[in-house]
Amino acid sequence: MSENKKSVRTEVSRYGEFGLIEKLTAGFNSLHPSTIKAVGDDAAVLRYPDRAIVVTSDLLIEGIHFDLAYTPLKHLGYKAASVNFSDVYAMNAMPGQILVSIAISSRFSVEDLDEFYEGIKVCCEKHGADLVGGDTSSSLTGMMISITAIGEVLPSGPVYRSTAQNNDIICVSGDMGAAYMGLQLMEREKRVLAGNRFVMPDFEGNDYLLKRLLKPEARRDIVLMLKDAGVVPTAMIDISDGLSSELMHICSQSKKGCKIFEEKIPIAVPTRELAKELVVNPLVCALNGGEDYELLFTVPVGQYDKISSLDGITAIGHITPADAGLNLISAGGQFIPLQAQGWQAF
Amino acid sequence: MSENKKSVRTEVSRYGEFGLIEKLTAGFNSLHPSTIKAVGDDAAVLRYPDRAIVVTSDLLIEGIHFDLAYTPLKHLGYKAASVNFSDVYAMNAMPGQILVSIAISSRFSVEDLDEFYEGIKVCCEKHGADLVGGDTSSSLTGMMISITAIGEVLPSGPVYRSTAQNNDIICVSGDMGAAYMGLQLMEREKRVLAGNRFVMPDFEGNDYLLKRLLKPEARRDIVLMLKDAGVVPTAMIDISDGLSSELMHICSQSKKGCKIFEEKIPIAVPTRELAKELVVNPLVCALNGGEDYELLFTVPVGQYDKISSLDGITAIGHITPADAGLNLISAGGQFIPLQAQGWQAF
Repeated sequence: MSENKKSVRTEVSRYGEFGLIEKLTAGFNSLHPSTIKAVGDDAAVLRYPDRAIVVTSDLLIEGIHFDLAYTPLKHLGYKAASVNFSDVYAMNAMPGQILVSIAISSRFSVEDLDEFYEGIKVCCEKHGADLVGGDTSSSLTGMMISITAIGEVLPSGPVYRSTAQNNDIICVSGDMGAAYMGLQLMEREKRVLAGNRFVMPDFEGNDYLLKRLLKPEARRDIVLMLKDAGVVPTAMIDISDGLSSELMHICSQSKKGCKIFEEKIPIAVPTRELAKELVVNPLVCALNGGEDYELLFTVPVGQYDKISSLDGITAIGHITPADAGLNLISAGGQFIPLQAQGWQAF
Repeated sequence: MSENKKSVRTEVSRYGEFGLIEKLTAGFNSLHPSTIKAVGDDAAVLRYPDRAIVVTSDLLIEGIHFDLAYTPLKHLGYKAASVNFSDVYAMNAMPGQILVSIAISSRFSVEDLDEFYEGIKVCCEKHGADLVGGDTSSSLTGMMISITAIGEVLPSGPVYRSTAQNNDIICVSGDMGAAYMGLQLMEREKRVLAGNRFVMPDFEGNDYLLKRLLKPEARRDIVLMLKDAGVVPTAMIDISDGLSSELMHICSQSKKGCKIFEEKIPIAVPTRELAKELVVNPLVCALNGGEDYELLFTVPVGQYDKISSLDGITAIGHITPADAGLNLISAGGQFIPLQAQGWQAF
């Protein structure tokens, strides 16, 4: 919330449920050709005659997934949409629509909600998606967000987690562990600033880590880059719970093993620097950190040349038969079995 | 919850997020021809090549929309799915899929969740819908449910709220006000039984009212009956916030007025009897009660004969030009302006 910035505070009760939905969704225009009817009836009406669609839902719960002490509501809206689009991209699909449901207590004002929806809007515009529905409700305690995203599968078809093949190259987009380091930074500053929650702390030099935490970017660019290069991944997943955990999903659902190389895992300089300062192993952050919202995918070994010429994609290892297990090869050549220690919802 | 009934209590943490989703969704089979891939990947994959689809989302928040002191979890699951299917039917569509997201605190056991999902399953089977996705999360406090339903529009096309015409007959399915009376009954028993929350009170003779509150039935039968009779409503909405409020939505979005007749509004005998006992006006319950999940729709006046021969449908009035206003004609012939006093989310 931003009571420190705003001089106006309008109570949500002034609008009522329907007036509020109307106000919050007024700035949204429907642009996607598949949207026939957006907000305003019992349901949205869509038309996808040509290709398969994907549908995904994610919950974001205050105190579990986000902390309003250091999360601006505009960023929260942006992130809530972004993490759903990330799931759409991970299926080899392009977002078309989202539905946004939000439950809030009376401590939130209409201005707060405007900020949240502004973040949703910016993210939707970036990813070509229309807001077509959702629900608003009061809550007795915290804030809860539930977003459903719908997308259209690319002509090359949906890419599942279960279809990685032996010898496929394992690739990741971007770098790992930065969002987790951003979280450590925020938690440290929160402890230091306890009692002064609306003083924005000094994060100089850590912009990259904070941006990765607060405003993750779903990798539309990577999916389009692969399409343009004529590369169809054999399996794909987005990295929300840590590289290690996602790799285990691909391997277990594909009934395969894997070998990845420590020195290949992309870790940004700010991530390494803060890890050093906090005396944690950057590799552990990269493997188990979570919230990177990068893509992890496999491609046939014959496409290695194509992949290696693409910016922002790193080959980190390869798929093996299942009986070889899931292994990380250390810089010294040691085999270390991979373990899922990602973020747990329970 | 049902600690009084169950001897076994398994902590949710024993399963972890992915194991839990797998366990809870294990009993669900995908049967709808449009479901290509259900639970288990980044998103579900669907294919609807022939007709438009509808998408709708609803939130159910503990303490706002339901009270676990008198709501069995199986009924809650059933109701959560049902209210979304009701929105699908109100668009002249048939349900195909749902996504179920749920946030729970540690006071819920795996057995509780099994009950909730069992209710979802029974409702999905009744309405021909597949469970294809969702999310589970812990919550610091109450229980929160977010459901998204997807359906396929009937060949006659989507029916909106905004397309009622002058002189159209206004019809409702079923009867009004029973769920509201069920709620009054539950609240009264809860006060009487305060401190003994797991003693099931004696509701003899009020089965109908309780069933209407706890286990509402989305009116698939009505939509199919209209289809078979060759009647396409000009406008339609489901009655979730009270007849009066929904009629105002149709009139305001269609830019029309209406005239409905007090003595035509269907009110069941148990509703009248309890209203008398509680000294409330049954008409007020019928107009403003909410949670009936019946259908309110308009048909061209030329189809009156067809409609009047159908069981379970009652003509209650007709659409007028906007300048005539929204009026209830009392048994004595008096014009009473309609007011929305339905349930407010804020």
